[in-house]
Amino acid sequence: MSTYFSDIPAIAYEGPQSTNPLAFKWYDKDRLVLGKRMEDHLRFAVCYWHSFCWNGFDPFGYDGTFERPWQRVADPMAAARMKADAAFDFFSRLGAPYYCFHDRDVAPEGSTPRESVNHLHEMVEVLQAKQAQTGMKLLWGTANLFSHRRFMSGASTNPDPEIFALAALQVKEAMDATLKLGGENYVLWGGREGYETLLNTRVGQELDQMGRFLNMVVDYKHKIGFKGTILIEPKPREPSKHQYDFDTATVYGFLQRHGLEKEIKVNIEANHATLSGHSFEHEIATAIDLGIFGSIDMNRGDMQCGWDTDQFPNNIPETALAMYLILQGGGFTTGGLNFDAKVRRQSIDAEDMFHGHIGGMDVSARALLIAEQMINDGELARHVEARYAGWNTPFGQDLMAGRLGLDQVAERVLERNQDTRPVSGRQELLENLLNRYI
Amino acid sequence: MSTYFSDIPAIAYEGPQSTNPLAFKWYDKDRLVLGKRMEDHLRFAVCYWHSFCWNGFDPFGYDGTFERPWQRVADPMAAARMKADAAFDFFSRLGAPYYCFHDRDVAPEGSTPRESVNHLHEMVEVLQAKQAQTGMKLLWGTANLFSHRRFMSGASTNPDPEIFALAALQVKEAMDATLKLGGENYVLWGGREGYETLLNTRVGQELDQMGRFLNMVVDYKHKIGFKGTILIEPKPREPSKHQYDFDTATVYGFLQRHGLEKEIKVNIEANHATLSGHSFEHEIATAIDLGIFGSIDMNRGDMQCGWDTDQFPNNIPETALAMYLILQGGGFTTGGLNFDAKVRRQSIDAEDMFHGHIGGMDVSARALLIAEQMINDGELARHVEARYAGWNTPFGQDLMAGRLGLDQVAERVLERNQDTRPVSGRQELLENLLNRYI
Amino acid sequence: MSTYFSDIPAIAYEGPQSTNPLAFKWYDKDRLVLGKRMEDHLRFAVCYWHSFCWNGFDPFGYDGTFERPWQRVADPMAAARMKADAAFDFFSRLGAPYYCFHDRDVAPEGSTPRESVNHLHEMVEVLQAKQAQTGMKLLWGTANLFSHRRFMSGASTNPDPEIFALAALQVKEAMDATLKLGGENYVLWGGREGYETLLNTRVGQELDQMGRFLNMVVDYKHKIGFKGTILIEPKPREPSKHQYDFDTATVYGFLQRHGLEKEIKVNIEANHATLSGHSFEHEIATAIDLGIFGSIDMNRGDMQCGWDTDQFPNNIPETALAMYLILQGGGFTTGGLNFDAKVRRQSIDAEDMFHGHIGGMDVSARALLIAEQMINDGELARHVEARYAGWNTPFGQDLMAGRLGLDQVAERVLERNQDTRPVSGRQELLENLLNRYI
Amino acid sequence: MSTYFSDIPAIAYEGPQSTNPLAFKWYDKDRLVLGKRMEDHLRFAVCYWHSFCWNGFDPFGYDGTFERPWQRVADPMAAARMKADAAFDFFSRLGAPYYCFHDRDVAPEGSTPRESVNHLHEMVEVLQAKQAQTGMKLLWGTANLFSHRRFMSGASTNPDPEIFALAALQVKEAMDATLKLGGENYVLWGGREGYETLLNTRVGQELDQMGRFLNMVVDYKHKIGFKGTILIEPKPREPSKHQYDFDTATVYGFLQRHGLEKEIKVNIEANHATLSGHSFEHEIATAIDLGIFGSIDMNRGDMQCGWDTDQFPNNIPETALAMYLILQGGGFTTGGLNFDAKVRRQSIDAEDMFHGHIGGMDVSARALLIAEQMINDGELARHVEARYAGWNTPFGQDLMAGRLGLDQVAERVLERNQDTRPVSGRQELLENLLNRYI
Ligand SMILES: [Co+2]
Ligand SMILES: [Co+2]
Ligand SMILES: [Co+2]
Ligand SMILES: [Co+2]
Ligand SMILES: [Co+2]
Ligand SMILES: [Co+2]
Ligand SMILES: [Co+2]
Ligand SMILES: [Co+2]
Repeated sequence: MSTYFSDIPAIAYEGPQSTNPLAFKWYDKDRLVLGKRMEDHLRFAVCYWHSFCWNGFDPFGYDGTFERPWQRVADPMAAARMKADAAFDFFSRLGAPYYCFHDRDVAPEGSTPRESVNHLHEMVEVLQAKQAQTGMKLLWGTANLFSHRRFMSGASTNPDPEIFALAALQVKEAMDATLKLGGENYVLWGGREGYETLLNTRVGQELDQMGRFLNMVVDYKHKIGFKGTILIEPKPREPSKHQYDFDTATVYGFLQRHGLEKEIKVNIEANHATLSGHSFEHEIATAIDLGIFGSIDMNRGDMQCGWDTDQFPNNIPETALAMYLILQGGGFTTGGLNFDAKVRRQSIDAEDMFHGHIGGMDVSARALLIAEQMINDGELARHVEARYAGWNTPFGQDLMAGRLGLDQVAERVLERNQDTRPVSGRQELLENLLNRYI
Repeated sequence: MSTYFSDIPAIAYEGPQSTNPLAFKWYDKDRLVLGKRMEDHLRFAVCYWHSFCWNGFDPFGYDGTFERPWQRVADPMAAARMKADAAFDFFSRLGAPYYCFHDRDVAPEGSTPRESVNHLHEMVEVLQAKQAQTGMKLLWGTANLFSHRRFMSGASTNPDPEIFALAALQVKEAMDATLKLGGENYVLWGGREGYETLLNTRVGQELDQMGRFLNMVVDYKHKIGFKGTILIEPKPREPSKHQYDFDTATVYGFLQRHGLEKEIKVNIEANHATLSGHSFEHEIATAIDLGIFGSIDMNRGDMQCGWDTDQFPNNIPETALAMYLILQGGGFTTGGLNFDAKVRRQSIDAEDMFHGHIGGMDVSARALLIAEQMINDGELARHVEARYAGWNTPFGQDLMAGRLGLDQVAERVLERNQDTRPVSGRQELLENLLNRYI
Repeated sequence: MSTYFSDIPAIAYEGPQSTNPLAFKWYDKDRLVLGKRMEDHLRFAVCYWHSFCWNGFDPFGYDGTFERPWQRVADPMAAARMKADAAFDFFSRLGAPYYCFHDRDVAPEGSTPRESVNHLHEMVEVLQAKQAQTGMKLLWGTANLFSHRRFMSGASTNPDPEIFALAALQVKEAMDATLKLGGENYVLWGGREGYETLLNTRVGQELDQMGRFLNMVVDYKHKIGFKGTILIEPKPREPSKHQYDFDTATVYGFLQRHGLEKEIKVNIEANHATLSGHSFEHEIATAIDLGIFGSIDMNRGDMQCGWDTDQFPNNIPETALAMYLILQGGGFTTGGLNFDAKVRRQSIDAEDMFHGHIGGMDVSARALLIAEQMINDGELARHVEARYAGWNTPFGQDLMAGRLGLDQVAERVLERNQDTRPVSGRQELLENLLNRYI
Repeated sequence: MSTYFSDIPAIAYEGPQSTNPLAFKWYDKDRLVLGKRMEDHLRFAVCYWHSFCWNGFDPFGYDGTFERPWQRVADPMAAARMKADAAFDFFSRLGAPYYCFHDRDVAPEGSTPRESVNHLHEMVEVLQAKQAQTGMKLLWGTANLFSHRRFMSGASTNPDPEIFALAALQVKEAMDATLKLGGENYVLWGGREGYETLLNTRVGQELDQMGRFLNMVVDYKHKIGFKGTILIEPKPREPSKHQYDFDTATVYGFLQRHGLEKEIKVNIEANHATLSGHSFEHEIATAIDLGIFGSIDMNRGDMQCGWDTDQFPNNIPETALAMYLILQGGGFTTGGLNFDAKVRRQSIDAEDMFHGHIGGMDVSARALLIAEQMINDGELARHVEARYAGWNTPFGQDLMAGRLGLDQVAERVLERNQDTRPVSGRQELLENLLNRYI
């Protein structure tokens, strides 16, 4: 049994007045919010990769900073078991109900495809047992199709169909594993599905390959009876110069082109949203309005840095607005709130992993409570309702129903022959209103 | 008759050795390139707005810098006529075959909708006569749905349907004008079709309004027998914080959602491409591969500035790569190469307008000649062909044809049970190859 | 007397529970914070330009959106008086103690230099009387050296010394006006002190010109006995492609080069900080540590937009951190907190101007109260103190005092011949701690 | 002896018509340019780290892609010798005259400080012998103070003085090594000299530490009689969120504050320039005009990516402008043109390393030839001379000499009482002129 976290007590709710850094101040899992338990609203997940696989390396420091004991074990399968021990010990002490993983996070690559599969099968047994012991659930599984050098030019979008095939094996196995472990979603993140230079790339060909691949995934999902949701996680760039799943709107267009817009939803990451030139709220609103909102990775970037910093959320008003939009959109169904977040590489102690997650959970819980107030008060919704009221008039409804042609509308304007004065958008009033709830 | 440009001779081709700044060094309109005249390849257009309407103002200098004579005439229609004189005098001296305009560029807003329409009708007569006199053609027309305060919250996406209607009148009239003037395309640029804050915005509602509007536009096009292409010009932000036509991929998704992907294409602007986090080449390649490439606005941004600087192109290798992709995609049909570009506000003289356009035309012509070499040589295409050769094998073709399921492919991999080694992408070799043609 | 704001009552403090949008919820001017009145800590100023001169225009809408009555008066001096009426009426109703202006904000450009000076003299009389009536004070004055076309290539950095001279006249007069009105600082913002292209620019020459100009300003300050602070406001770009006063560190280097680092401080704007790739807090900390912190422009940008949006602050935790740093640095002396902020151009009503300022004042007041708690609690300071404790050891002090050479230190390390283990930076813990105070 | 490059012939100059990708088309080292050999102008250096130490890893692929043989040798010193063999074999076949290295590139970290020093001493002997055999020279040496976990919070700016001391040992030894190997410069790049969060950082304290460290470096340089130049390489961020050596102007201010502006110059990297919001040309012009231009790292970034991509230069006009400015500034003295550049991680073959360097050398050589033409022609210089001619008048000279106070200049303007009209900046004309030389 791992002792890495043995100095850390199980994290308890102590309330806003607590000064104990290893306690929740806002996340009170059984508290009812709009009639549902906080835990059931937020559906927090811890990710395996950042906390248990990453050694703290960055482009300027290969050897990392963390010195986790399970990263210093020579035998890969022994290390994988020790890592699983540590991970589930962490999950249990933290008290988040879900976790997420890539195949290669939990089971090492073997020397042949078959050996890799065997490793995964073996570790899925281990995870299954751990889930049973601890009550942890799997929010989603995924396959790592970007770390091994064979995927340097993409997986499903690789110029070589044999590499597409190797990716297919991994995804098939990762889907099987997710099904077996009761996972509620399956995620595809396009790590290297993109390009470095157009000089060597056929964009159309690669998009077609990716469309084919996703159709195979969806077909397989139905074949095996997986009831969860298939999710694509958009990201605009990094590691690739350009990634095909640039943002939610791009993914939506891609899904339609391949007939998949009813089958696949998005997992929106806050950091990827800002890298693509949007706000997190924008991506959430877009996904909801296009009908493809699935799940979120609640990890922020640093607006002064042009890469994926994957930091824990800490900004209360921004998180509150995101949560308000999610609740307005109906909340999560199979999705949840995954922390695809890592502690800074200077945060080298076991306890730092807890500080990161506790802070993220508390900010999210507080955001949920603020959103609850916003909804109960209704003031913001009333403003928006009033702003669009004109579309409820007969003329507005005729327009939207397609009962009027361009020339008919033009004719109507010429008959009235008068201008329409604009109305204040009241942005500052509404921004102040949001702060009233904080 | 305007005398503003009377010191400038008609611009002639003098060849690369010329040191005359008021001559073309590369644009030789009758030179055959891949069997077609340069003029017919490039289909250059001058835009009305930047050169004839803008007074050199910017957010920190309201009064502008230019002092064009037609901007100092009190009577709006007299000014409009004087501006048309100057514009066609400029077009003729420059020797570009096309121009483009917004309704409000050529005819002033009136005090009522009807008066505005009358102004436009009157000026269309003027333009028609000028086209006949000079041989100039209209590449595209468009409507200005963003400058008047009534459109401050959008045109088709306005919360008020009466403002949607006022926009409809303008577009209907601008389409009529474009048809009458023999325009080859009609462009919609989403100036304020977007939002400033999600706090007061229903994204889904606004997108539906825009979808409706575009369907009305397409219906009207068919009704009046306009044979040109309807084009949307993507831009990610500015003036709005977020604009719905963010980039080509976003527009494609939107078109599909509203059943318009066969009816509408894109007009890609280099500066808008870079503002959206892409390269110009990326946007061109994407549009071609999605089947919606229409036309281009060949004006660059400044990569150190986060706004739309609309500068004339001057980078030879970048322009060459764009031109290569366009030629590979079949070249322009109804589209062309519009300079949605403005001279810097410190370039206050009449002659500066010529320097800007001459530079842009020469860079584009030179890019065309480089692209011709690249195509004739074929080396780049051979590299790309070889890279994707695996997809021509039976296995590659089975995959793409959908003859194999995920589990069948996985099974095949396990049977072979061996890895596939990746192959160098040769990016540096190909970058060097591109420079060989310059 | 202006009636534009007559429907708006004087803004009163009503406390956090108030739902009145036209009341302060946190700004309680007489409340004592760390022994000083809130008003004396925060020293709020309203700027003349955004609220009273700007008509809501942007690069895509020249005619603006606001329709302020004083912008529709034909006679410039009559308009200036009406604007002053409106401005002081607004100031009084709002209850901020200070205002700021550019010469051309309050008095129109004349047809000759002398007439411009006369206009200013006349309006300074008006302002003086208004200050006496209302009790308003002047935080700082400045000269607009960027709007008139003569300054299109810079003022003190202009290639033409005659334009340098015209700028000198304006600054001399604006300094005189500031002195006469009891202004507590004089600001220089380098509107067009920069370049568009290096192809026509001598950077070294222009920097020397600017150094000379600032020395003349400082000499003149002493000559007239102005006791306030001279401030430079850094900004990296816009309107120029590159501005010489890029950020605080750049200004510091420039001041040293010209022997001015004891004479001039910085006015840091939040939006300019983020445009230069820094955080607002970074610029504040840098200025304090370099000894040149003067005053702030508390207006945020939009991190998705690459230009100066000059929005009112609304993010509580970010503002709190800025305020904490300012208090740790000793707070303001002659400086204050100016809102160089404008309502969005869709916020067209008189009341919107109040919403913007009320929100900004409340967020700042709340930030002050949070900073007070942080200081009283002391937990954050204790963490930082402990982190650097090693520099209080004899070895640390020998190092900093320059008592050890590189080779002596190296020798000492080789003698000890052991590594030193790093210590966690505890970033997540400290981020959580900050949120505890909110 | 390494055989890794044995299939690659020595790279020869074959001229622009050559289609051999493994030949120079423009770099003809003995060709005279403005009276000096090309090789002596360009002073090309190959860096050790990217080509010989990096295994192709990135944040999403730890195991890398390259499989260089010397990276697969278990014994660190044996690997270091094999790497040196390969490196000098590569240098010789390529034909660049210089190389650069970090201490840890050439010699592995030992288990104690003393062992690390011994490793370095041993490898310096090896390098010395290799230099003698091949004629290669050392452009500069440096110390890696950022990869080891002990430096995670900085080296000279570390909160722990013992880590400052460990850095001092490394720099002392790297300076000794550089002296011994005849290095012409010594570089300090502030890898982690910066911060991740202000919450745990004393900026002023850390800047003072860095100032102290650099003074120790300069003192030691004089003590050992090193005649080369000490260089700081600015970079704004990455790996740190904020790095103290943000850009050239920031470094200049820092040097002045610590009395070092005559002792230390800058090594400007193109990619770091663009990351800091500047152009490469801007940084060069600034350094020249401030008197601290030293050397360059000629590797570009990707303007769509927000991190340091360190790509080989390939844009001819941009490189030409940089080269023109360097020549105008007098060219290199001890500095040179280092390729701190790496092939893309998909360019996995030995030959790709040659393509990268050949392309970079050819672009630079071509840029040099273009700059030669620009200088010989003189047209650009004449435009600039004319633009600033006013500063040669008596009035201009009086101003710059400080013979006129602000009030005297103001008085003079009021006496003349007339405005001065601005003159066109001719940006487009000059941009076209630059293209004429390409
Ligand atoms: Co991420
Ligand atoms: Co994620
Ligand atoms: Co544009
Ligand atoms: Co355009
Ligand atoms: Co600003
Ligand atoms: Co400001
Ligand atoms: Co770099
Ligand atoms: Co470098």
